[in-house]
Order: sequence, then structure tokens, then C-alpha cells
Amino acid sequence: MITRRIVLASRPGPEGPTEDNFALTEAPLPEPADGEVLLETQYLSLDPYMRARMYEGANYAAATALGEVMPGGTVSRVVRSRSARLPEGRIVTSRNGWQTHHVCPAEGLETVDPALGPVSTALGVLGLPGHTGYGGMIRYGRPQPGETVLVSAASGAVGSVAGQVARIRGARVVGIAGGPEKCRYLTEELGFAAAVDHKAPDLPEALRAACPDGIDVYFDNVGGDIFAAVIPLLNARARVAVCGTIAVDRNQPAKPGIDRLQELHSAILIKQLTLQGFLFDMLGDMQEEFRRDVSAWIRSGELKYREHMVEGIEAAPRAFLGLFRGENFGKLIVHMSG
Amino acid sequence: MITRRIVLASRPGPEGPTEDNFALTEAPLPEPADGEVLLETQYLSLDPYMRARMYEGANYAAATALGEVMPGGTVSRVVRSRSARLPEGRIVTSRNGWQTHHVCPAEGLETVDPALGPVSTALGVLGLPGHTGYGGMIRYGRPQPGETVLVSAASGAVGSVAGQVARIRGARVVGIAGGPEKCRYLTEELGFAAAVDHKAPDLPEALRAACPDGIDVYFDNVGGDIFAAVIPLLNARARVAVCGTIAVDRNQPAKPGIDRLQELHSAILIKQLTLQGFLFDMLGDMQEEFRRDVSAWIRSGELKYREHMVEGIEAAPRAFLGLFRGENFGKLIVHMSG
Repeated sequence: MITRRIVLASRPGPEGPTEDNFALTEAPLPEPADGEVLLETQYLSLDPYMRARMYEGANYAAATALGEVMPGGTVSRVVRSRSARLPEGRIVTSRNGWQTHHVCPAEGLETVDPALGPVSTALGVLGLPGHTGYGGMIRYGRPQPGETVLVSAASGAVGSVAGQVARIRGARVVGIAGGPEKCRYLTEELGFAAAVDHKAPDLPEALRAACPDGIDVYFDNVGGDIFAAVIPLLNARARVAVCGTIAVDRNQPAKPGIDRLQELHSAILIKQLTLQGFLFDMLGDMQEEFRRDVSAWIRSGELKYREHMVEGIEAAPRAFLGLFRGENFGKLIVHMSG
Repeated sequence: MITRRIVLASRPGPEGPTEDNFALTEAPLPEPADGEVLLETQYLSLDPYMRARMYEGANYAAATALGEVMPGGTVSRVVRSRSARLPEGRIVTSRNGWQTHHVCPAEGLETVDPALGPVSTALGVLGLPGHTGYGGMIRYGRPQPGETVLVSAASGAVGSVAGQVARIRGARVVGIAGGPEKCRYLTEELGFAAAVDHKAPDLPEALRAACPDGIDVYFDNVGGDIFAAVIPLLNARARVAVCGTIAVDRNQPAKPGIDRLQELHSAILIKQLTLQGFLFDMLGDMQEEFRRDVSAWIRSGELKYREHMVEGIEAAPRAFLGLFRGENFGKLIVHMSG
């Protein structure tokens, strides 16, 4: 058995990741041993966190080695099984990475029930991004009815769930997204009170106009200049839930300019802010309520989601790089055709 | 009755507060009305927060108006009373500001019991600074046995209590102070595991050497470059309790340089940090346990404190400005002589 896969061919240079950093290769796979299964990837999730894995050095997870397959969450089908737990044909969530096939222990793989809806949602609204948006908003945002909640990358996989959860909890939700189409989606489809286009000429002023009562919760998926623009608008005792830095490649050096570190420090003190960075694994205990609530809200139409599907493993590098230019509209997923 | 007082004569310029911003004046006081008392100031507390009040503009408390007496907490004696609650001769905590006498309602003034120790401690270790250090460390630092806790301005009124509370709770406490004398005090008198002189040539390296296992809690009284130097040393899930910015005049413009804002943002995410700004009034519910614990620890010798006493209201401006150059050693108090 051969797997077709995309490996990390070289580390990014000073311009950040490019297509040259990836290579499509083939590799033989062993037969599954006792207790193992052979998986065929159906859907591959492309996520911002993968950029950090391309660099060497400290992060919250180890770097991907050169020549290794790019990491990633997948929905797969069991095509050969040496485990009584998982018969052939079963659909599971797994971490195959960017490849067509994978052999791994059946232990720890979770079955996806196709009767509940499209199995690809196990990578998005009903998977890790949805869980992160739901749990992060509830646990660290703590939105109260009538409060103003701002969400960046708000049409994305995490942000769209975070914002809708806050709306369902009675907050006035404002979203930041790139371009008029995504902004319209936020207000017309997701029920946000307002949307701000981060490509607009005067972002600080646009944010101020959209949040006339200030900001009580900022669910931050992007970092960078948007984070800086939000600081002066935060109300006393505001909560900032830091979930991502898609706007900034953390492994590139900082730019010279005015040092805004002290401005933030002063705001933390004067406004008694709470800033909380978090990862998915700090929300693991909320799995049951997340699944129950979000699947019910999808059924009732209270919560909506979008998927941005690209076709075939060859499309993965370009689609992945497009994440950082906001080229996707909804959860970015590769459909692994054949 | 005449009160001698120090008023805000002008607002600070681009060099920050100077002695020229203060003026010693006299003003007549009314007779106490029904329910009021005439107070004679015994001790005046000088604190870093007063700097921010000298400027116009937003802060967590209103600016002092030009020509108005400088604000401040005091220990006073009731010299005339029209309230059955407070007979003449009673010692109370009050907010007379920088002046020798004050007329105010008896309602809300709290009696100080001279039998419990020097009444000046009601402005320091047993007053607002001690309460802030105790409550902030316990509620927002949450030190665990064996963790490394770093405290800046550690020989000061707030920091010395914060650090000793963490030590009593079983943490390894490292203090930052200015000069060898204060550093010796931290290790030899207060039982800190190590002390770092912020005037030392290579502060980041000195901090790293003093915290070989990283930092789990940073109790920050200073902001500025020390805050920036601490960020890379913070451990995963570290807590930063932001209590003050004595090292930085928040009302002066930021300096050009490398913008370290994103570095902090990335650290918040990667290390899942919690940053919490807080004010004394978020700790009001801890009053009883604070008094009980700290007074017991003083009696048992487990917790020590220092007062830096200056004589006479005329000495207040210079002593106050010295706070920001670290010229005091212990809680800075003006003894109001006659």
C-alpha cells in the first residue's frame, strides 16, 4: 500500500511559508499489525496552527521534522482492520496528517455517525474548532446579556461558533471579517449586531463606531494590529480570550515602531482586564455540553456554519497559505478525492 | 481653624512630576457641623497611584483639580467632635489628603486601636498596601507550594507583603528591588530565596539566573522593562497579577523601539497565560482574613515590615518624587509634626 502525502520540504524563510516549503511524495505503508487499522483519508482539516509547526523552536507543540508529513486532523474510513473495535467501513476522526492513507492503532479513534449530518462537520462546527469557540467563549469570555462581545476572524471555523454562542447567551455580538461578503454573512446569516471589515481604511474608527458602548469581551483569533486597536475600546473588567494569532506569523521578528507593550500593561491595570490564553485541551471537560448544545442549535437553525471545500491533496498547500490571506470562507477542508 | 496643605499647583510637563507642581498653602476650615469631626493628621501615606491623579484625563479615579489639596490616606486624631460615634482623642483612618487638618462626617471613619501596635501601620502593612499585597497574591497569583513566585518592588509596602504571603504558602519567592541593601533585606530579613537588583547591568540574565525553573507567578508592581524581561521566563499556565506601574509614568508618551506587544500576545497564547489587572476594591471581601492572618504573622515574626518615615508636611513633595527613584526603603509615610 502506498500513501500519497505532502511533507515539509524546507522551513519558511523571512517571508513566511510559501508553496516551495511543501513537497508531494509517496511512501509505502506497512500492513496493519494486530490492533491496528488502515485508514483512507476522506477529509483533511487545514488550520492556522499548522504554520507554527513548520518552524523549529519552542511552541505549544513540537515542530514538524523536515521530510515528515504535515500534521492535521482528518475524517477517515477504515479500509482494513485488525481490530475488533473498528470494522471495515467505519468512519472515524483521526490525525492522518496531509496524506491519503495512514496506519495506526484502533485504540483512541472515535467513530463518526454519518446519520447525524455531513461527516466533514467532525472537523469543523462539531469538531475541534467548534469546541474551541464554544468552550473558550463560555469559560473565558463569560458573556453576560446585553454586553458587547467582539470576535475576530468571525466568519471562520472557531469565530463563527464563538460569536453565535455569545449571541445565543444574549450578548450584542460584533464580528471582524475580511471583505463585504463575509461581513454581510455575519449580520444577515449569523445574527451579529454589526460587522467590521478589517480591510477598511480606518479600522480603529470603524471598531469604535460598531461598539458605541465599548467592548466587554474580545475573543481574539488574530492578534496583531487588530488586538492593538481593541485595547482602547475595552471596558472596565473586560475579558480577552486569546485563541489565535492568524494575523501574525509568530516566528518572524517583531517590527520596529512605537512599543505598545506598556500601553497594554497600563490598560490591564487601569481597566482591571483579564487576559487569558487558552488551548483546546483546557476545554476537554466541556465535550459533552458542547456536543449537546451545538448539535441542538444546528438542528433548530439557531447556529449556522459554512465549509470551504477544496478538492484533492495537491490543492492543500495553496489552500493552506490562503488561510493567512483570508481566502477561505468558512472552515477550510480538503476533500480527498480518490 | 487653619489647615496647612499641599495643593496641586500645576500639571506635570513632559519630564513628569517635579517639585514645582506642588505648593504649600493655608486655608481656613469651617467648624464641624452636626455629625462631623475636625481631624488632625498624624500620618500621611504617600503612594505611587498619586502620580496619575496629577494629570488630566482618564484613569481609574478622577484627576485632582488645580489648586486642590493632593489626595491621600491618613491616620488622624479627632480634635473636635460633633458626633457621638467618635469622641475627641479617638484615632481614625481617613482620607485627609496632604494637609494638617480636615473636617468631614464621622460616618465611615474607622477607629484604629493603638493597643495593636504603631498606628502608622494602618497605612501600610495593616492597611491598604498590605491588604492589596495579601489579597492580590492569594486571589490572582494563586501560588502553589514549590512554585517560583517573582515580585517586583519587593521591599515596598505592597510587594513585601505579597512576597511573604507567597513564601508562607510554600512558594519559592524571588524579589526585585533597587540596590544591594534592599536585596539583602529580601533574602536576610524576609526569607526570600533570591533577590535581583534591577539596577544590575543585565537584568534579563540576572532574572533568568534567579529563576532557574522559570516563573509561575509574577506579582507586578512596576511595569516597563522589567515586565518585558519577565515575559520569556514565564512558565506554561503562569499567572501575572498586575498591581502597579511605578516604573512607568503612564501619562507620558510611549517610546519608539521594537513593538513588543505581539511578543506578549504570542506568549499569552503559547503559554496559556492569565494576566489580571486589579484594584484594591476587588479585594474588599478579604478584609477579615487579611487582618486576621497578617496581624497573627506579625506577632509570630513570620511576616516583617518596614516604614520609611519623613518629618513634616513640607517634606512630602520631595519624598513623594523619591518614590519613583526608589529612594524610600519601606512604606513611605509623612509624620505630621505639629
